[in-house]
Amino acid sequence: MTRFVPDLEIDGERLLTRLEALAECGALTGTAGCNRLALTDADREGRDLVMSWMRDLGLAVRVDAIGNVVGVLEGTDPGPPVMTGSHIDTVRTGGRYDGCLGVLAGLEVIETVVMSGVRLPRSLAVAVFTNEEGARFAPDMLGSLVYVGAMPVESALEITDASRASVGDELERIGYRGATHCPGEVPSAFVELHIEQGPVLEREGRTIGVVTGVQGISWTELVLSGQSNHAGTTPMGLRRDPMVPAARIAVFVREMSDRRGGSQVGTVGALTANPNLVNVVPASVRMTVDLRNTDDEVLAVARAEMLEYAERVCEAESVRLEDSVLAASDSVRFDDGVVELIGNVAIEQGHQPWKLPSGAGHDAQMLARVCPTAMIFVPSRDGLSHNPAEFTEPDDLVAGANVLLHTLLRLANQP
Amino acid sequence: MTRFVPDLEIDGERLLTRLEALAECGALTGTAGCNRLALTDADREGRDLVMSWMRDLGLAVRVDAIGNVVGVLEGTDPGPPVMTGSHIDTVRTGGRYDGCLGVLAGLEVIETVVMSGVRLPRSLAVAVFTNEEGARFAPDMLGSLVYVGAMPVESALEITDASRASVGDELERIGYRGATHCPGEVPSAFVELHIEQGPVLEREGRTIGVVTGVQGISWTELVLSGQSNHAGTTPMGLRRDPMVPAARIAVFVREMSDRRGGSQVGTVGALTANPNLVNVVPASVRMTVDLRNTDDEVLAVARAEMLEYAERVCEAESVRLEDSVLAASDSVRFDDGVVELIGNVAIEQGHQPWKLPSGAGHDAQMLARVCPTAMIFVPSRDGLSHNPAEFTEPDDLVAGANVLLHTLLRLANQP
Repeated sequence: MTRFVPDLEIDGERLLTRLEALAECGALTGTAGCNRLALTDADREGRDLVMSWMRDLGLAVRVDAIGNVVGVLEGTDPGPPVMTGSHIDTVRTGGRYDGCLGVLAGLEVIETVVMSGVRLPRSLAVAVFTNEEGARFAPDMLGSLVYVGAMPVESALEITDASRASVGDELERIGYRGATHCPGEVPSAFVELHIEQGPVLEREGRTIGVVTGVQGISWTELVLSGQSNHAGTTPMGLRRDPMVPAARIAVFVREMSDRRGGSQVGTVGALTANPNLVNVVPASVRMTVDLRNTDDEVLAVARAEMLEYAERVCEAESVRLEDSVLAASDSVRFDDGVVELIGNVAIEQGHQPWKLPSGAGHDAQMLARVCPTAMIFVPSRDGLSHNPAEFTEPDDLVAGANVLLHTLLRLANQP
Repeated sequence: MTRFVPDLEIDGERLLTRLEALAECGALTGTAGCNRLALTDADREGRDLVMSWMRDLGLAVRVDAIGNVVGVLEGTDPGPPVMTGSHIDTVRTGGRYDGCLGVLAGLEVIETVVMSGVRLPRSLAVAVFTNEEGARFAPDMLGSLVYVGAMPVESALEITDASRASVGDELERIGYRGATHCPGEVPSAFVELHIEQGPVLEREGRTIGVVTGVQGISWTELVLSGQSNHAGTTPMGLRRDPMVPAARIAVFVREMSDRRGGSQVGTVGALTANPNLVNVVPASVRMTVDLRNTDDEVLAVARAEMLEYAERVCEAESVRLEDSVLAASDSVRFDDGVVELIGNVAIEQGHQPWKLPSGAGHDAQMLARVCPTAMIFVPSRDGLSHNPAEFTEPDDLVAGANVLLHTLLRLANQP
C-alpha cells in the first residue's frame, strides 16, 4: 500500500477540459460565461455531468435532502472523510471558474489518487453544494448551511424564488431531491479551492493565496425622506433634499474605510432617487451601505459610526432617516493548523503563498462551523468575478489544484 | 364710452367654477389633479371647453398653425392687442392651477370688461399656448416659441413624442391644426398670471408676486465610468468607484450654491448607478446637475466651477468623466415698466407685492422676446406644483386675477 506520494501531480489537461465541458452547461452565447442559476435545467445538466464523472471514477455518490452531491473515495480506515468541494451554480451572468474550480479540482485530486494506486487511511470526499450564489434562492450558501445543520432542511425546502417556485419543488423537478439525511456527516477537515474574485494576488504577483478567514459582513439599507420640490423655484434655504445627506454618507463611507485601514472595506453600491428627474428635488433616496471587516467588533463600531453620521447629516437637512439590516454575518476564522498546512504545501511546491481574508462568502465558512477548515485562492484577472469575463491563467488553476492535492493527501494520511 | 374703471372687479365665483370645470378634463381619479398632456384627447376636451367660453363671450377666436388659440376682444383703436394667457396642458400627474389660472383669469378679465360695458382703446387678447410643459413633446414652451418666431412652425410640427407621434399629426387628429399664420401678431404688451410653483410668497406671507424675470438654466449630465468590482474582495486602495466622485459632486453642488447665495440654486435630482447592487462597486454612475441663476455670467462661472471640481475628483479616483449639456437657456429680464405697473396696481389693491425671479420657465419668457412683458405670481401651498396636491387659496387666485385685470386695463387704456 503506497502512502507516501511526494511527487504526485494532478492532470492539468484533464482538469481544464472538464472546466470547459462544464462551462457548456448554461453557456452564455458569445461569451466565456455561464447562466447556471441553482436548480434550473442548466444546473441539472451540470450536476448530471459531474455525477457521471464521479461514477466513472467508481466513487460512492450520494445526493442529500437539499440536493448536495457528495462523491466519496473510501479510505482504508473507518471514520469521517477529508472533504473538499464547492458549488456549480452561478449568478445570472457568471463566469466559468467561480465554484466549478473547487468541485472539479476536488474530483481531479481524487482521480489522481485513484490513478496513482495510492490507498489513503482516510476517505476523500468531494461535494457539490446547492445554491451557493443565492442568486435564485436566498440565503446564499444554502446547501452547506443545511449540511452543517445550521438550517433545518424542511425550512430550506420551502424557500421560494421570485416566481414563487420552491427549493423543494425545483429539486424534485430536476431529480436532485435525494434520500441522504441532513445535516450530513461531519468531515475530519474541509479544504476549498476557489478563485480569489478580487485583485490582491494579481497585484502581489502571487499564485497561491492561503485564506485565513472570511470577513464579517454588514449590509444596511438607508431610506432618506425629504420634500420633493421644483429644482428651479425652491430657494436653497428652504430645501429638504435627501440627495445631499445621501451623498455625504457615500463620501463618509469611503473616507471612514480609508481611515480605518486594515481589512475594512465600505461600498455604496446602490442608490436610487425618487422620482429621479433632472429638475425635481428628490422626495426620497434609497441607498445601501456594505461594510466588511475580519474583526467583528471593529465592524460593529464602523457601522455605528456610519449610522451616527447619517443621523447627523439627515437631521441637518430635516430629512427623515430609516435604516434596516439587509444582511449581517459574523467573520469566520479558519483553522490555524489547516492554514499552516496549506502554506507549507504551497512553499514546498515553490510558491510564495500570500495570506489574506476572503471578502466574499464561501461554502467553506459553513463547514468551518463543524470541522477544521481553510481555503486556497488562485488569482482572478483584474479581480473580476460574477462576470463572463472572469479569468484565471490555466497554470494558476493547475497550481491551485496541486496545492489542494497535497494538502488533502497530508490530511488524509493523518491518523 | 366708459374708460375709467377704478372699482371694477372680476367675478371670483365664475373664475373658480371654470377652474373646476377645466380640471374635469383629464381628471386624475381620486386626486385634485389632472393628466392633460399636450395634444391628447384630454387636451382637446379642455381646449374645446375654453374655446366655447371664448365664443360665448363673442370673442374673435383664432387657432394658429401650431395650435395656439387666441381669443380677441376688439378695442376702439386699431393696432396690436394687449395680450395675456398661458397654457392648459399639464404634466402626467399635474395640478389644476399651473397654466389654467393664467388662461381662465385672462378670460375672466375680458368677461369682466365685456359685462361692464367698458370700451377700451386697445384690443385685449387671451392666448392658450400649445405644449408649454414639454412633458410630451420637447422643447417646452413650444407654442409660444413658435408664436414669437423663434422656431419655424414646420420644424415644430415634425417634433415627435416617445411613441413617434408628431405634433403635426396630433394637432390634426384633435382638430387644432389651425389656419392662422405663425409667427403671430406681436402684442403691444404681455402679462401672464401664474401660480408661483415655489415656496417664497408663502414664506414671506405675500399674496402677490411681481416677477422680474426668469432664471437662466443649465442642465448637465455627467457620466462617470470606473471599474465594477466585488464590494468584499476589492481593497479600498484598488478601487475606481464612480460613486465616490459622484457623491462628492452632489455635495459640491449644494455647497457651491449655498456659498454663491443670491438667486443661485443647484440640484442633483437624478443619479443612477449601474449595476446598482448592494455588493458591487458600480461600473458607472449617471447623474444630472441643474444650476440656475438670474445672472447668466454667474451661472456660466458656477457651471465651469462644478465641471472643474468634477474633473478633479474623477481624476483622483481614476474615473472617466463625460459631460453633456441637457439643456441651457439664458435668463430673461422682464420689462421694467410692466414690472413697475404690476407692483403699483398690487399696492393700490392693498397688497404688499414681493419682487422675485421665476425659477421655472413660462410662456411669458418667449413673449418677452418681442414685446414688453412681465408676470404676476400667487402663492403655491408648500411650494408644490407638477403634483395633484398643487393648491392655491381661492382668495389668492381671485386677488391675482384682479391685479391682472387692472394691469391689463392700464395697458389697454394707454394710447
